[in-house]
Amino acid sequence: MEYRIEKDTMGPVEVPADKYWGAQTQRSVNNFKIGGLKHQMPLEIIHAFAILKKSAAQTNAELGVLDQAKADIISQACDEILEGKLDDQFPLVVWQTGSGTQSNMNVNEVVAYRAHVLLGGSLQDEKKKIHPNDDVNKSQSSNDTFPTAMHIAAYKMVIDTTLTGAKKLRDVLKAKSDEFMTVVKIGRTHFMDATPLTLGQEFSGYVAQLDHAMKAIGNTLPHLSELALGGTAVGTGLNTPNGYAALVAEKIAHFSGNPFVTAPNKFESLAAHDAIVETHGALKQLAVSLMKIANDIRMLSSGPRSGIGEILIPENEPGSSIMPGKVNPTQVEAMTMVCAQVIGNDVAVSVGGMSGQFELNVFKPMMVNNLLTSARLLGDVCVSFNDNCVVGIEPNIPFIKRHLENSLMLVTALNPHIGYENAAKIAKKAHKEGTSLREAALDLELLTNEQFDEWVRPENMTGGLK
Amino acid sequence: MEYRIEKDTMGPVEVPADKYWGAQTQRSVNNFKIGGLKHQMPLEIIHAFAILKKSAAQTNAELGVLDQAKADIISQACDEILEGKLDDQFPLVVWQTGSGTQSNMNVNEVVAYRAHVLLGGSLQDEKKKIHPNDDVNKSQSSNDTFPTAMHIAAYKMVIDTTLTGAKKLRDVLKAKSDEFMTVVKIGRTHFMDATPLTLGQEFSGYVAQLDHAMKAIGNTLPHLSELALGGTAVGTGLNTPNGYAALVAEKIAHFSGNPFVTAPNKFESLAAHDAIVETHGALKQLAVSLMKIANDIRMLSSGPRSGIGEILIPENEPGSSIMPGKVNPTQVEAMTMVCAQVIGNDVAVSVGGMSGQFELNVFKPMMVNNLLTSARLLGDVCVSFNDNCVVGIEPNIPFIKRHLENSLMLVTALNPHIGYENAAKIAKKAHKEGTSLREAALDLELLTNEQFDEWVRPENMTGGLK
Amino acid sequence: MEYRIEKDTMGPVEVPADKYWGAQTQRSVNNFKIGGLKHQMPLEIIHAFAILKKSAAQTNAELGVLDQAKADIISQACDEILEGKLDDQFPLVVWQTGSGTQSNMNVNEVVAYRAHVLLGGSLQDEKKKIHPNDDVNKSQSSNDTFPTAMHIAAYKMVIDTTLTGAKKLRDVLKAKSDEFMTVVKIGRTHFMDATPLTLGQEFSGYVAQLDHAMKAIGNTLPHLSELALGGTAVGTGLNTPNGYAALVAEKIAHFSGNPFVTAPNKFESLAAHDAIVETHGALKQLAVSLMKIANDIRMLSSGPRSGIGEILIPENEPGSSIMPGKVNPTQVEAMTMVCAQVIGNDVAVSVGGMSGQFELNVFKPMMVNNLLTSARLLGDVCVSFNDNCVVGIEPNIPFIKRHLENSLMLVTALNPHIGYENAAKIAKKAHKEGTSLREAALDLELLTNEQFDEWVRPENMTGGLK
Amino acid sequence: MEYRIEKDTMGPVEVPADKYWGAQTQRSVNNFKIGGLKHQMPLEIIHAFAILKKSAAQTNAELGVLDQAKADIISQACDEILEGKLDDQFPLVVWQTGSGTQSNMNVNEVVAYRAHVLLGGSLQDEKKKIHPNDDVNKSQSSNDTFPTAMHIAAYKMVIDTTLTGAKKLRDVLKAKSDEFMTVVKIGRTHFMDATPLTLGQEFSGYVAQLDHAMKAIGNTLPHLSELALGGTAVGTGLNTPNGYAALVAEKIAHFSGNPFVTAPNKFESLAAHDAIVETHGALKQLAVSLMKIANDIRMLSSGPRSGIGEILIPENEPGSSIMPGKVNPTQVEAMTMVCAQVIGNDVAVSVGGMSGQFELNVFKPMMVNNLLTSARLLGDVCVSFNDNCVVGIEPNIPFIKRHLENSLMLVTALNPHIGYENAAKIAKKAHKEGTSLREAALDLELLTNEQFDEWVRPENMTGGLK
Repeated sequence: MEYRIEKDTMGPVEVPADKYWGAQTQRSVNNFKIGGLKHQMPLEIIHAFAILKKSAAQTNAELGVLDQAKADIISQACDEILEGKLDDQFPLVVWQTGSGTQSNMNVNEVVAYRAHVLLGGSLQDEKKKIHPNDDVNKSQSSNDTFPTAMHIAAYKMVIDTTLTGAKKLRDVLKAKSDEFMTVVKIGRTHFMDATPLTLGQEFSGYVAQLDHAMKAIGNTLPHLSELALGGTAVGTGLNTPNGYAALVAEKIAHFSGNPFVTAPNKFESLAAHDAIVETHGALKQLAVSLMKIANDIRMLSSGPRSGIGEILIPENEPGSSIMPGKVNPTQVEAMTMVCAQVIGNDVAVSVGGMSGQFELNVFKPMMVNNLLTSARLLGDVCVSFNDNCVVGIEPNIPFIKRHLENSLMLVTALNPHIGYENAAKIAKKAHKEGTSLREAALDLELLTNEQFDEWVRPENMTGGLK
Repeated sequence: MEYRIEKDTMGPVEVPADKYWGAQTQRSVNNFKIGGLKHQMPLEIIHAFAILKKSAAQTNAELGVLDQAKADIISQACDEILEGKLDDQFPLVVWQTGSGTQSNMNVNEVVAYRAHVLLGGSLQDEKKKIHPNDDVNKSQSSNDTFPTAMHIAAYKMVIDTTLTGAKKLRDVLKAKSDEFMTVVKIGRTHFMDATPLTLGQEFSGYVAQLDHAMKAIGNTLPHLSELALGGTAVGTGLNTPNGYAALVAEKIAHFSGNPFVTAPNKFESLAAHDAIVETHGALKQLAVSLMKIANDIRMLSSGPRSGIGEILIPENEPGSSIMPGKVNPTQVEAMTMVCAQVIGNDVAVSVGGMSGQFELNVFKPMMVNNLLTSARLLGDVCVSFNDNCVVGIEPNIPFIKRHLENSLMLVTALNPHIGYENAAKIAKKAHKEGTSLREAALDLELLTNEQFDEWVRPENMTGGLK
Repeated sequence: MEYRIEKDTMGPVEVPADKYWGAQTQRSVNNFKIGGLKHQMPLEIIHAFAILKKSAAQTNAELGVLDQAKADIISQACDEILEGKLDDQFPLVVWQTGSGTQSNMNVNEVVAYRAHVLLGGSLQDEKKKIHPNDDVNKSQSSNDTFPTAMHIAAYKMVIDTTLTGAKKLRDVLKAKSDEFMTVVKIGRTHFMDATPLTLGQEFSGYVAQLDHAMKAIGNTLPHLSELALGGTAVGTGLNTPNGYAALVAEKIAHFSGNPFVTAPNKFESLAAHDAIVETHGALKQLAVSLMKIANDIRMLSSGPRSGIGEILIPENEPGSSIMPGKVNPTQVEAMTMVCAQVIGNDVAVSVGGMSGQFELNVFKPMMVNNLLTSARLLGDVCVSFNDNCVVGIEPNIPFIKRHLENSLMLVTALNPHIGYENAAKIAKKAHKEGTSLREAALDLELLTNEQFDEWVRPENMTGGLK
Repeated sequence: MEYRIEKDTMGPVEVPADKYWGAQTQRSVNNFKIGGLKHQMPLEIIHAFAILKKSAAQTNAELGVLDQAKADIISQACDEILEGKLDDQFPLVVWQTGSGTQSNMNVNEVVAYRAHVLLGGSLQDEKKKIHPNDDVNKSQSSNDTFPTAMHIAAYKMVIDTTLTGAKKLRDVLKAKSDEFMTVVKIGRTHFMDATPLTLGQEFSGYVAQLDHAMKAIGNTLPHLSELALGGTAVGTGLNTPNGYAALVAEKIAHFSGNPFVTAPNKFESLAAHDAIVETHGALKQLAVSLMKIANDIRMLSSGPRSGIGEILIPENEPGSSIMPGKVNPTQVEAMTMVCAQVIGNDVAVSVGGMSGQFELNVFKPMMVNNLLTSARLLGDVCVSFNDNCVVGIEPNIPFIKRHLENSLMLVTALNPHIGYENAAKIAKKAHKEGTSLREAALDLELLTNEQFDEWVRPENMTGGLK
């Protein structure tokens, strides 16, 4: 590979000749060989930085501390990043300095040097027309830019991917719930046969869970909408022009399309990431909900002959390389694996979140990486689970009927008529002798055949059908 | 010990002669010898059950399915429980059936048999005037009563203990922040000297964290205010009179003083406990915040000679049995241990929450036990930490001054005047030679003595003082 | 209450007149009102301290730094603690100073003052004949005594309760496995019908899991057998006589009956509690194993009519207050709740373990409380689950047979004879038409009736029966 | 893109014309759009599969159930995978079916079709000379191959990366400990000044932690060395030739260079992944240890003027974009972020591990992905932390001396001479008046100047120097 020499305050360093990044990025490449390609800083963070740098440049120009021409060329370079043209210019991994300084500098360098080239300069020029620190990073510090980029990226991912995916799944589950609202089936508590409900009622519980989970996620967004930018190094706003913080937040809101505001307290915004903890906590709740829902669907579709078998799910692939004819709940499995991961990620986020010291939390890249990963995976898997499984769910009427008719638990319907203890006697007798409730009841002479017909009507036991 | 014989549908069982509980409670005592006394079902749950049973009895009477006289004697027994007179009648442990059925029956039996005695009966009577199932548990199932008691108890604990304790601590931190607002000190990022801020600004970050944490907890309360009662066994409301669910929720709201409502979807309320997951998630966020705050106070008060030493905390006890004169941040340690526990408990709650199956989650007692424990510990430790530590915090002015004056990081103030790279040269020289910034700056002839005085003014670098 | 005045280096404090504890204990009672009675320091730690104090006193005497008479009266007081006579003298909670200093002083004070009384003195005497620090705590510091007590208590609990309980359960599962070794049943993968195995083979997997889990726990014991005592305040052994550390470990081994040794590196023993992390990690593995096993048993016993229903478990209590005749897997539920708790506790232990600073970890009481709780709960619940559930497990032969005979998955047996794709065709046809494999195979003319009989023999597909 | 048509038992599917994979791989590509490129199945698993498929083919040939020629061409294709030539043929993500079936089929298809091409065939041929199921997957099932690949890949990663990295770091810490063994410094407990020790002693604690952590990891390897292969679909070994399981394990051991054996109980190997839980638990312990060590180094190197400052770490990069001259503990930050992630991953692994059902655990890809990630990150970060930080650590003698001389805690040295309470008086007086211990002691007339010199010698208080 060919190299050029770039310098920072520590001296010269060799950089690949054709790359836009500079000395500080290269030092991080050299010093943090941890995890490999899969562990690169998420592009969502880089793109969030592009919005940030553009907003800061325009704010600086508007407040008179940066030439408008410089601001515009910086903005142009940022737009190229947002268009994805420079995605290969951000080689750093998550496992770098905990403030994300190196990724901030990576962006500063790429923006400055790309701007320099846009202005007609060459990467080989020793002095560039735009300076990474003095121009691109003006009125900023890594300590307030990185957490700002965290919030910009996280907000977008949660809105665009997580909530969108969850909503899609929720709506289809709701349609299924409505569709199945009169399909009476056996209920199960303690994994044991219980009184009946309808399949639609069962699914309505899933809908309620997702409604609550989405609301809980929504509750966290105001905290996530607060931006650290303007706090600079320790939260005091040193070296920022008057009015900077509020204005730059406005511009970020404008360019991103999300309702960001400047954080009322910048000390919290740098030293703690409770907003990330809060939002990830809500994602974890969603994972908990989805785990329950997916698990139910796994069990309801089990069989084909010797399971619960009350619903049918789509066949998407051959289930096994040795057992022909078997179709597995593979989408359920992807879903529940994602949920387990999110529950684990939540702990990583908590450990990072609790570990801020004085004016800075230095677990930033790890925290936001987990948030973006969890938010993305949950959104993606909701869509996959929905499109490849839930939309195709059908009730398996023969199984549902057989289970319902065999059930001993319909005896509960007799409670109000013959009392708890008599009802128990009938159930026990039927259970012991392997007979039906009716036979047992008549044998015990606790009621007549007609009374049984009148009192034991599963459809009357589901409330929702009243 | 003397015994009497009580019966349930499974047959007779020996019960201590003088205890109000019956056969089903005793079976649980016999079958679940797990963990011992420290693991008894929290009394908060028992008391919540008392509110529930009284509300249910009065609702049943009002709706015409229970004699008013029975309802009143049941209510009287419940009031005795609420007064703490029967606290020794609830011997069951958390590690019982996962629906909490056995504790529901424990309450049913104690209420019924105590009511029987209040009506002039004797515990030795084979037939009691009030029946645990047919009367006390009327229009109820364990499956809807236990989650209702969970919400009643949890809501109260969170409001009365957690939020009250957190608010107390928050208010004192706010007062300290105001008091210290002009105490300029060195900032620290990456645990390294940084630009200055005031001690009051530093504390204002803690206040912002607690404000956000309390708001996050508050956001979860609407979900927690939804009551399962009326769902009975599987959520359909089987065997409840018309209008029961809404009315009983009203009565529970009335008797408890908290704004409970009937859950719009009972299937979710029985089969999932996402409300518990949600509230505990917010408690975990509070723990994360408190860990950061307490840790800072630990480090800020370190010393007395060789630490950071910028604040003084009260001496509450001799610190060590071997090192006289040493005073330790013991309240910080209690606080951070509690926070670690809450972060762990959150995982237990998530594992329980995700494990519901079909119409019932059977991790109920474990989940609510963790919620009550975390909520109680956080509230208690906030008060202890506040009263025995935070109220007495004072700035250690000599240390604060020495650190500030020695600092190399004030060089940042020169950035706008002489540029980033020149400022870096000064700092590096002073650092290398162990001299002051002023000496290094003058040696390098980058500015004059007067310029140094004018440009390097820590109080001008804290923003908040402008 | 009546009080007497006790003093420490900070001055006088009021102590209940009839209690053996002194000033420092009382300060902790006053300053740490957190959590209440359920959160008292585990008695196992107090009893471990009694062994420690006795061992230290005798070692001090043997090495000539303490009068033998003093050592003997100290030992006598310690023996009273070990006999449980002084259990009400240890009121402190877990949520105290993170070094456990206050509980160390509680023991020092109670031992000293009880010894003073044994020597004929009175609690009201201002000066006691035995001094809590100079005598009872001689050659010790809280910093090395508390971690020593942690190991003594933890080792005993793990050996006596966890491993004993797990072994009991393992042995009964092994007996069941042997008993059921020829009961051929349908296998299930992806919760879907699969090729057959025997019920005994299924149970043999549980046995293998427990064998591995017990081995993993055993692997951690050497680390747990290392004692911090002799390190005193920071690990250097300051103020201990020559030969002290090795000798006192010997005595502790002798008095406790467990193979303790002095830790080769005392700095690690005070500043880190990786041994606790390690042992709790193995307990967590046991919890993971038990969760799987219990869950299987829950599902295998589901029904009675509409579940998997392949095993029967004992009826221990009426299952539901509303649904007569229903018997629930309550022991499974207690087990799985305990497992969830242990998985959560493991995180609390990790957070504590990672948080040591310099020469001391100050999350000691929280860490050991979790270890003792998890170890106790796992041991207790293994015994409860075993005695009240597993010993009574029986195969439900009619269900097992029906499932096996209905199964489509026996088609796998045809793979070697007619190839994967032909076998798949048969299974698909039978599945689609709801017929048996035999019918489908004959219809497709892929084999003869006789070949079906010869090739499809479930008992030949289980390997273990060959 | 150009496509060709491939078929499986479900019918035809379009596959990119130039790719070696077939129908089943493509179905997974189509149905599991979750997470994107960063979430592809780890190549370590693919390479482990190559060893497995080669070993199986040769075993099948040796046992007479596969032509030797077929076995050889399969082996040749596997060797190409191991050489990395086919890395772009494995597009599937972790979030697929929980048994890993689809990745097993991906390997089967690529190996078969590559072998077909090696034999002179074309990808466009409808019928290939080597069949993915009948030849490459012979005597196997996804259910036993995937867990086998998990163990092969995990064992290698733990040995080659984790333990190698940890050992490197441990050895350098040991060398530093030896080098610093006579550098006397202040100790710190409760983050407060304590009695002295040497810097080498402090570092020796880190070495002891790593020794224990590596031993704990080593303890888990025997479990990890057990291979599921030979269990086929449910653990019974259906459709495997006699002697297959033991022989194939031998071959895997041979080809991988690691001491694998066939698992004594295959039911456990498929249905549970306690070996993964066990090994990850030990990785988590290592993370806990490293967190403590890194945190200490962060704090010890804090400053440069207003921190603890007792060690110096290498300057690797400019620390901040706004604060010139500041050098941050960036390697510490990468390390502690990794540790937080590993602690979180451990929970994901536990949740997966506990969730096996009947004959299969379907959280396999998620579990092994976490194990490989944690193992890789820990190994990489140990090397990075070592090479870029620890190797360059030097004591900061001026700070160390100043802290030691100022310390009040040397008073402990007087305990044996003048008693605990008199020593406390001296320390308190010096503390209150801001004077030295000597001055306070003389003022109080508790000892002479000469006695002070004789008794208070820090180097005599460190034990290790005796």
